[in-house]
Amino acid sequence: MASSNSAIGVWFIGAGGALSTTAIVGARAIARGLVGRTALVSDDEAFASLGMADLPEFRFGGHEIRRTSITESARSIARENGSLRSEWIDALADDLAAIDEDIRPGVARGGGTAIVSIADPRHCVPKEGARAVIDQLVADLREFRRRHSLSELVVINLASTEPPPDDASALQSLEALERAIDGGGALRPGVLYSYAALTAGAAFINFTASPSCLPAAIDQLSVRAGLPYMGNDGKTGETLVKSGLAPMFRARRLEVMSWVGYNILGNRDGSVLADGANKSSKVTSKDSVLASILGAPVKTRVGIDYVESLGDSKVAWDYIHFRGFLGHPMAMQFTWQGCDSILAAPLVLDLARFAVVALRRREVGAMKHLAAFFKSPLASSEHDLYRQMDQLHRYVKPSS
Amino acid sequence: MASSNSAIGVWFIGAGGALSTTAIVGARAIARGLVGRTALVSDDEAFASLGMADLPEFRFGGHEIRRTSITESARSIARENGSLRSEWIDALADDLAAIDEDIRPGVARGGGTAIVSIADPRHCVPKEGARAVIDQLVADLREFRRRHSLSELVVINLASTEPPPDDASALQSLEALERAIDGGGALRPGVLYSYAALTAGAAFINFTASPSCLPAAIDQLSVRAGLPYMGNDGKTGETLVKSGLAPMFRARRLEVMSWVGYNILGNRDGSVLADGANKSSKVTSKDSVLASILGAPVKTRVGIDYVESLGDSKVAWDYIHFRGFLGHPMAMQFTWQGCDSILAAPLVLDLARFAVVALRRREVGAMKHLAAFFKSPLASSEHDLYRQMDQLHRYVKPSS
Amino acid sequence: MASSNSAIGVWFIGAGGALSTTAIVGARAIARGLVGRTALVSDDEAFASLGMADLPEFRFGGHEIRRTSITESARSIARENGSLRSEWIDALADDLAAIDEDIRPGVARGGGTAIVSIADPRHCVPKEGARAVIDQLVADLREFRRRHSLSELVVINLASTEPPPDDASALQSLEALERAIDGGGALRPGVLYSYAALTAGAAFINFTASPSCLPAAIDQLSVRAGLPYMGNDGKTGETLVKSGLAPMFRARRLEVMSWVGYNILGNRDGSVLADGANKSSKVTSKDSVLASILGAPVKTRVGIDYVESLGDSKVAWDYIHFRGFLGHPMAMQFTWQGCDSILAAPLVLDLARFAVVALRRREVGAMKHLAAFFKSPLASSEHDLYRQMDQLHRYVKPSS
Amino acid sequence: MASSNSAIGVWFIGAGGALSTTAIVGARAIARGLVGRTALVSDDEAFASLGMADLPEFRFGGHEIRRTSITESARSIARENGSLRSEWIDALADDLAAIDEDIRPGVARGGGTAIVSIADPRHCVPKEGARAVIDQLVADLREFRRRHSLSELVVINLASTEPPPDDASALQSLEALERAIDGGGALRPGVLYSYAALTAGAAFINFTASPSCLPAAIDQLSVRAGLPYMGNDGKTGETLVKSGLAPMFRARRLEVMSWVGYNILGNRDGSVLADGANKSSKVTSKDSVLASILGAPVKTRVGIDYVESLGDSKVAWDYIHFRGFLGHPMAMQFTWQGCDSILAAPLVLDLARFAVVALRRREVGAMKHLAAFFKSPLASSEHDLYRQMDQLHRYVKPSS
Repeated sequence: MASSNSAIGVWFIGAGGALSTTAIVGARAIARGLVGRTALVSDDEAFASLGMADLPEFRFGGHEIRRTSITESARSIARENGSLRSEWIDALADDLAAIDEDIRPGVARGGGTAIVSIADPRHCVPKEGARAVIDQLVADLREFRRRHSLSELVVINLASTEPPPDDASALQSLEALERAIDGGGALRPGVLYSYAALTAGAAFINFTASPSCLPAAIDQLSVRAGLPYMGNDGKTGETLVKSGLAPMFRARRLEVMSWVGYNILGNRDGSVLADGANKSSKVTSKDSVLASILGAPVKTRVGIDYVESLGDSKVAWDYIHFRGFLGHPMAMQFTWQGCDSILAAPLVLDLARFAVVALRRREVGAMKHLAAFFKSPLASSEHDLYRQMDQLHRYVKPSS
Repeated sequence: MASSNSAIGVWFIGAGGALSTTAIVGARAIARGLVGRTALVSDDEAFASLGMADLPEFRFGGHEIRRTSITESARSIARENGSLRSEWIDALADDLAAIDEDIRPGVARGGGTAIVSIADPRHCVPKEGARAVIDQLVADLREFRRRHSLSELVVINLASTEPPPDDASALQSLEALERAIDGGGALRPGVLYSYAALTAGAAFINFTASPSCLPAAIDQLSVRAGLPYMGNDGKTGETLVKSGLAPMFRARRLEVMSWVGYNILGNRDGSVLADGANKSSKVTSKDSVLASILGAPVKTRVGIDYVESLGDSKVAWDYIHFRGFLGHPMAMQFTWQGCDSILAAPLVLDLARFAVVALRRREVGAMKHLAAFFKSPLASSEHDLYRQMDQLHRYVKPSS
Repeated sequence: MASSNSAIGVWFIGAGGALSTTAIVGARAIARGLVGRTALVSDDEAFASLGMADLPEFRFGGHEIRRTSITESARSIARENGSLRSEWIDALADDLAAIDEDIRPGVARGGGTAIVSIADPRHCVPKEGARAVIDQLVADLREFRRRHSLSELVVINLASTEPPPDDASALQSLEALERAIDGGGALRPGVLYSYAALTAGAAFINFTASPSCLPAAIDQLSVRAGLPYMGNDGKTGETLVKSGLAPMFRARRLEVMSWVGYNILGNRDGSVLADGANKSSKVTSKDSVLASILGAPVKTRVGIDYVESLGDSKVAWDYIHFRGFLGHPMAMQFTWQGCDSILAAPLVLDLARFAVVALRRREVGAMKHLAAFFKSPLASSEHDLYRQMDQLHRYVKPSS
Repeated sequence: MASSNSAIGVWFIGAGGALSTTAIVGARAIARGLVGRTALVSDDEAFASLGMADLPEFRFGGHEIRRTSITESARSIARENGSLRSEWIDALADDLAAIDEDIRPGVARGGGTAIVSIADPRHCVPKEGARAVIDQLVADLREFRRRHSLSELVVINLASTEPPPDDASALQSLEALERAIDGGGALRPGVLYSYAALTAGAAFINFTASPSCLPAAIDQLSVRAGLPYMGNDGKTGETLVKSGLAPMFRARRLEVMSWVGYNILGNRDGSVLADGANKSSKVTSKDSVLASILGAPVKTRVGIDYVESLGDSKVAWDYIHFRGFLGHPMAMQFTWQGCDSILAAPLVLDLARFAVVALRRREVGAMKHLAAFFKSPLASSEHDLYRQMDQLHRYVKPSS
């Protein structure tokens, strides 16, 4: 374990949300020995040789567009969802209050109606123009780094999913992006955050599906800045199961005819996602994750519906209709009942730890060895969970 | 593909059962182009370099203790289960009639009440004494080999599961086994079959759970005879899913607290297994497959109940209770609805093909690279389906 | 049982479809003793006192817009779905050939694109203008009645669901409807069929969701003609389970917060329904069936997706999120795996038998005692399956 | 509502258990307006005319064989199960402390090893001999009645299930029972409690499966004492669903071939029940509830397994294999995820309210109108939930 003198910055976009709150309270509760370390992939002994930074070294801060605090958000989760315990929040009161000091106003403008509607204008960056906004974000990050004498800084996007960019051409090259920033083009908050992070010397991770965060322009910036990044979209629930179960069908050469899945969930993301996901699910009627693993076309459908009573619980039902020997039809179905924040939070902490390794090794560009953590891993066409894990293990021991 | 002039013998213990019938009718239907090749693992292009024997080269025969024929059995499956089609049986009438000529009386004595009760004494080896019975079995195999000018011979046990041996000490060494054979000790049919197979120069595969088939004594015999063998217990349904799904929980370090499963099935094996399985399931309340994959103890329970109306269909429901980050409990459940014979038959043909490779390569002893096909693979402690498949791929390309 | 000399006409709109074929083959197979009488509600001894007409007395005919025959359709169902058996079709060859003589061209024009696109123009009524079309339909029915010396005639609509009427005002009164018929207004086929049926002295039953079939205008016509009718939309699968399970939650005063259901199916109706149902399901986000039974608002969602590989199988998954004592949340989920035609066909025959009773009793208007058979029963606000059955029993024994 | 001056005694056998605690805390929380009244069947307006006693009038007390208190038990439930909330327990601190004053030592001797092993000898009635024990129990009840000036008293057995009686003949008549009591025969605690309750002028309700509670002897005693009683075994979970869902299959004359169910649960009762239930489930392979509702034999199997990680949660999976029209096989499966105490507690309060009505009406013997609340209702062969509810409604309005 690294020396406890070091301090590492972990900065969340969407700092006041349920996922950020769960990751922060969880990391501090573990650091103080209040609870065990279940579900941290990075704890596997296979990664011991990396000498990873550990949770006690993490200093948390972030951007947020709503008027809230980690403490408030934690209390609300404890009351309504039960996944955080009141006694932890009591015991961590000072820690959380200190972290609340490091929450800065975020960027809502350009994020689309759904996001703008939940923002509090008094808690958004007041500047006009992309360059001025970026300057403010960079200043926030530099101040955070200075204040805590951070050795490394990782910025992770946990905010609600944005719509696709209005003008994709501005994201195709760093040059075009710089022009758009200075010329006042319409840009999504996602790319302002990633641009600012790399400018401030931080690694950047896009844990959301927002497509503006990590385009070609940002890849070029990462090369110029000599910094690593990764995304997109944390693989937490139904897609995790798909990527862990489809390989069984491939291994046995069972022919999956149809694989349809329905997700119901009740949290803020569910409400925001429902529209967009519905729309995009029509487009992606040929689901690439499954076709990629199964090596054959398969009829898929992914439904997402908002069911308020579920709160942060997420229920997915998948029905897999397949043919075996002699073309005989058979079926498997599963129901997955998880808690969104609880599934995602440890991955966020894992990614921070792996990103610190990459920063220390001065790695540049997409950290494609981290594909196992993402629904749409950048620079990788591998979706099979176990092959993705093999890639991660080879990163640790290249000869194996 | 190997030359179509060659002929390879595939001999089934329990030749008249649903699994044997499905494998034979399926192989012939594929050979004659009546149906496609779904679910043959050995068809994967990763194994192309092995130059495996193909289904048209297979000549089928077997031992059977009931008065039946492949043709009759196939008609009954078509009528009651629908997994074989009448038109295939019509088209294959001559093929099946010819194979029926190669069915010989089997051994029931010593197999326990459940097996003895379904046997027809007029269709059992009439000899008294283990040595005389073995001589008859060897003679059957040699005649089969001669009649069809077989280049290789593979014997596969598909008979109903036997009880544990009465006197395990007789199976501990080849010397002790020879003594028991000549001294008239109580031996299960399983070990008489495996002893006879290796004596007749055949590879032997135990696709059942019968523990008498492949003890230390037979391993020693395989070394003396220079022949390969493998077992035990084909991994076809619920256990397949377990071994393909548990790695996901391990990869994410989710803590599986309990994993309970209930199987309901209505075929002959279901009726025979129910008793024994119930009994043994109590013993194995700490299921080794899951504990081995998960690397931690887990409360498990496997129930098997006979539900006659299901026929050859098998339904399994599994409930997985696990903890995620911060110890939060979540759950996954699945229902698997398969057809037993349809799931098992292609594996039987795969194993025959891989065994021919081993025979041609003059491999000796347990074919541990075939662990992926078995619930309790011999000479292997690996139960993770994907790691088992990796082993098989390394067998093909040792350097990879 | 009524005398076997009597002959009763049962005329299906959509005669060549899977449901009509299953009802006809089933009725004939039962009449000839080839198969038992499972799933006929009308067979319950509670209805014995009604002296109902039985299946051997039924003579079948119908309208159809595609070029097909009952025989062909039956062969295709046997081959692809297995719910009809080849040996029955063989044994009934003469019966089915005779019935094929009584299939007449149907009406596609006005049925919307989905219906027009599956129609064969050479198999549609060639006449122009609503009155001329009606005259043809009436003539078909009268010829059928004469040819078989029918004592009663029941017309049942089994065709694919039509879109809502273009001009609802024409359906509000018989006078307006007569004007539209003669004036060449745009009318759906559904109302032409029901108008023709009542004109020809038949009872009319709308087993589909088509809203044009039984408007106020037709109710007035039924009074003038002194004839009974009923609809809409046969209650066969997921809705049946809802109406049979929701009363349990009401009985125990458990508070259903959300009840969401997803249907996947692969038959022609599935393909046609998917669009419209999706659309309408948005509208009916407050599902009246459940709210009516539960006596409280409940968040509902009904999804219908076309999954071709399922054929005539239909799988529905419902998730019921409810609160118990002290507001504690709990959940129930079910999966229903049925065969659409097999579920619907016996209800169609039941309805024919009950309609004959009404004809003989000279009942007029909506047969509201048959609410148990419909998703949207006319002249009834009762959706609880058991209260609906009580209504039916009271019809038989008013005093009970 | 009855006058709030009146006080009604509700006495629980097994007062310190999870069910009793949930019922008491729930009743007090409702009485103080801390939470709503979900899931009280007796709240239905159909019963308004009965003028039932309400929860604020209830005074609670009970017998208990373990050293515990309602307060402690409530805290433990809040911590481990979450179904009671800490803030309610805080707010009710005085109420619960007062009730704890009315918990008296119970009877373990004769209850079988499982029950004796969880008892604390210092918290058991110290007397020797059945008559002396009964005298003590009667004294406890009379003191309770006097202390709170109770107008009526209801004793409800919530203790763990006892084994069958050693000597059933002693329970066949009141005379034989009196002889056994005075002669020192071996009697289960259950019959001592019911004998004592009726002797003390209380109504008695057996909410458990213990078969000694309400034999013929106690029925005779109830006549002599002029008091009502009812049992056996509260219908709370999987059996509730069976009795609410099977009527749908009967209504449609679908032929249920097999209905198998598996229950997993982790509470104290689960641990105690597992053994006995396993044993008895073999005996009752022809489940009378289902056969009674379906009016036909059906293959059933009920499994109960103890899965510690589930705590007070109970998961049941049922698979229903049925035939429809033309004998076509189809299937329905459901998963029920409930909390045992939460499901049972409101029924216990309902039964107390209905028993008070019977006491006031001077009803004698089995309250068979309460069959809907029991798995094995006394004096009733009706298991259909809706017909049972009809019976209850007819009790209120005999003419309806």
